Amino acid sequence: MQFELEAKDPKSKARAGVITTDHGKIETPIFMPVGTAGSVKAVHTRELKEDVKAQIILGNTYHLYLRPKLDILEQAGGLHKFNGWDRPILTDSGGYQVFSLSGTRKIKENGVTFKSHIDGSKHLFTPEGVMDIQRTIGADIMMAFDECTPYPCDFRYAKDSMEMTHRWLKRCIDRFDSTDPKYGYSQTLFPIVQGSTYKDLREQSATFIAEQGREGNAIGGLSVGEPAEEMYATTDLVTNILPEDKPRYLMGVGTPANILESIALGVDMLDCVMPTRNARNGMLFTSEGIINIKNEKWKDDFSPIDPNIGGYVSTFYTKAYLRHLVTAKELLANQIASIHNLTFYLWLVGQAREKIKSGEFASWKNVMVEKVSRRL
Amino acid sequence: MQFELEAKDPKSKARAGVITTDHGKIETPIFMPVGTAGSVKAVHTRELKEDVKAQIILGNTYHLYLRPKLDILEQAGGLHKFNGWDRPILTDSGGYQVFSLSGTRKIKENGVTFKSHIDGSKHLFTPEGVMDIQRTIGADIMMAFDECTPYPCDFRYAKDSMEMTHRWLKRCIDRFDSTDPKYGYSQTLFPIVQGSTYKDLREQSATFIAEQGREGNAIGGLSVGEPAEEMYATTDLVTNILPEDKPRYLMGVGTPANILESIALGVDMLDCVMPTRNARNGMLFTSEGIINIKNEKWKDDFSPIDPNIGGYVSTFYTKAYLRHLVTAKELLANQIASIHNLTFYLWLVGQAREKIKSGEFASWKNVMVEKVSRRL
Repeated sequence: MQFELEAKDPKSKARAGVITTDHGKIETPIFMPVGTAGSVKAVHTRELKEDVKAQIILGNTYHLYLRPKLDILEQAGGLHKFNGWDRPILTDSGGYQVFSLSGTRKIKENGVTFKSHIDGSKHLFTPEGVMDIQRTIGADIMMAFDECTPYPCDFRYAKDSMEMTHRWLKRCIDRFDSTDPKYGYSQTLFPIVQGSTYKDLREQSATFIAEQGREGNAIGGLSVGEPAEEMYATTDLVTNILPEDKPRYLMGVGTPANILESIALGVDMLDCVMPTRNARNGMLFTSEGIINIKNEKWKDDFSPIDPNIGGYVSTFYTKAYLRHLVTAKELLANQIASIHNLTFYLWLVGQAREKIKSGEFASWKNVMVEKVSRRL
Repeated sequence: MQFELEAKDPKSKARAGVITTDHGKIETPIFMPVGTAGSVKAVHTRELKEDVKAQIILGNTYHLYLRPKLDILEQAGGLHKFNGWDRPILTDSGGYQVFSLSGTRKIKENGVTFKSHIDGSKHLFTPEGVMDIQRTIGADIMMAFDECTPYPCDFRYAKDSMEMTHRWLKRCIDRFDSTDPKYGYSQTLFPIVQGSTYKDLREQSATFIAEQGREGNAIGGLSVGEPAEEMYATTDLVTNILPEDKPRYLMGVGTPANILESIALGVDMLDCVMPTRNARNGMLFTSEGIINIKNEKWKDDFSPIDPNIGGYVSTFYTKAYLRHLVTAKELLANQIASIHNLTFYLWLVGQAREKIKSGEFASWKNVMVEKVSRRL
């Protein structure tokens, strides 16, 4: 994997760059749609490429490990071959899902035991095991096995957890560096900065992560319920420490406004279930603001969902029609809303990239943050 | 509306023709996907045109009348404008749904009172009202208000019902002929043959319907639980009476084998929820036979769903991937299976049309009926 920095915004820390993988290039800053179980919910592979214009998608190690399981993924020749997505894929480590299974999981130094949400069967994730799993899934970008601390989190727990995450990282790196990709293309490993919202822990963690010298770095443990200001302050602090010549991935963020603010803080990659999950609840993100399409006011609005962002669904279907589909609980509603929201997210980061390259990002960002946050 | 007969099969009653409407041509024999509430479930308008290659779709008067309601459809400029489908649309009369609401509906000479399944509100459908509703929906082909008798049905009930359907037809025709289309394009009205499975009633009804001299005719009251042999015998009898120079629409039929047999009996148009409904339960119709994609045997079958019929989903996605999506209850499973099944149905009637034109239909049909009926 290579990363080339193309432009820096003069009035913020925003940057534009290009990541090159064996499955193609990724123009940053980039938003990555989440394809939990090998499918971005309600969106065809073709639509992801041609309408949404996604350049990289996520897969969830926990979900894929449990279903379809590794034997099927390996027989298929990896996730790309299995789901037909031939552009880059990033997989998380499974840690986030496993830790969410509170009550059924046990964290020890060796790893985490947990019970499957599907059939209750018992499993163990270790740093080494999670590297092997991601080798088999075949992600272009693999994530280190970390503990994502909840918010709020007391200092002692945050510190112990961060230190364990660092020890686990060493084990991840050892395993990663001593194994080969399975399908003939390169894979890379991103370590993850933790430390909750504690300034000194975050500094310590970012320094440790930076020292590993990997091809990219991630910021975890944010967007877990902390105030946006704390998230931005932490991100700001961490991006000051992480190397400038490597892509920075802020995990699980966020709203359109969060995304723009994070880009301003030097973040290059982001992912979030929000555009697809909220779509399935009738919330649309548009270039003019946020729409709850269930509201009566849209029932006779025959204008396109969002005429400004291009893309088939956003310009072809009307708000009135989508509202009808949502009200009638038609499956097509999920499809249209999901594709629209993702198209908007990709449009937004594409616009950010343009503005960074033209040196206008900071002022544009301030206008857009307001615009995309208002409720229509 | 015009109908031009292009070819007749020498060894069966099958015919190939072209229906011309103000929204374009329909090549017969044709299968019409069902778009209940203004959406063919889980299928985009673009996919219906480009992948499925649907030439005409159905809308359900009962559903559209209740939601989004007529005021919205009228403001939109009709259903075509509302859902973006610019090819022909056929609407049923709402009768079938209303009669299914047993317990909450009352049939009288004037019409049928019923309660909405959505909010329990009371409504009245009369032959005249149903014409007005379909004028407002803006269907290219409107259906007469009839009673669809259940199976089995005693002779007395079937006879009385048929006679009422005939009286209702006169009222439908009076209303239709004394009103104008609302959106600047032509609409036409198809009457419906009833009479349950009684030979003499069907003869009587078909004769009466033929005498009305409308631009097309329909056969109703079949595919309601009677044995296939009775359905074919009744269809055979009715198509002998209905005029040859008008399209014949067999309502609510059926399996791929039913469709081929009906075409052999001189049917030109068919519709059924089976391809989409069964898709949502994991049943796939393919050129090689019927697949229950939930079965374990497909979990490592990495061949395309159906390589023989063209179309994006059928040739791009594998059986193993679709099985995974169905098992994981991913929304994309409904989408892939629905588009595939519809693509197959349209492929099948397209093949039938080719074979009729080349004079090989009868023998091809016998081979195909066996092929498409077997369980894989």
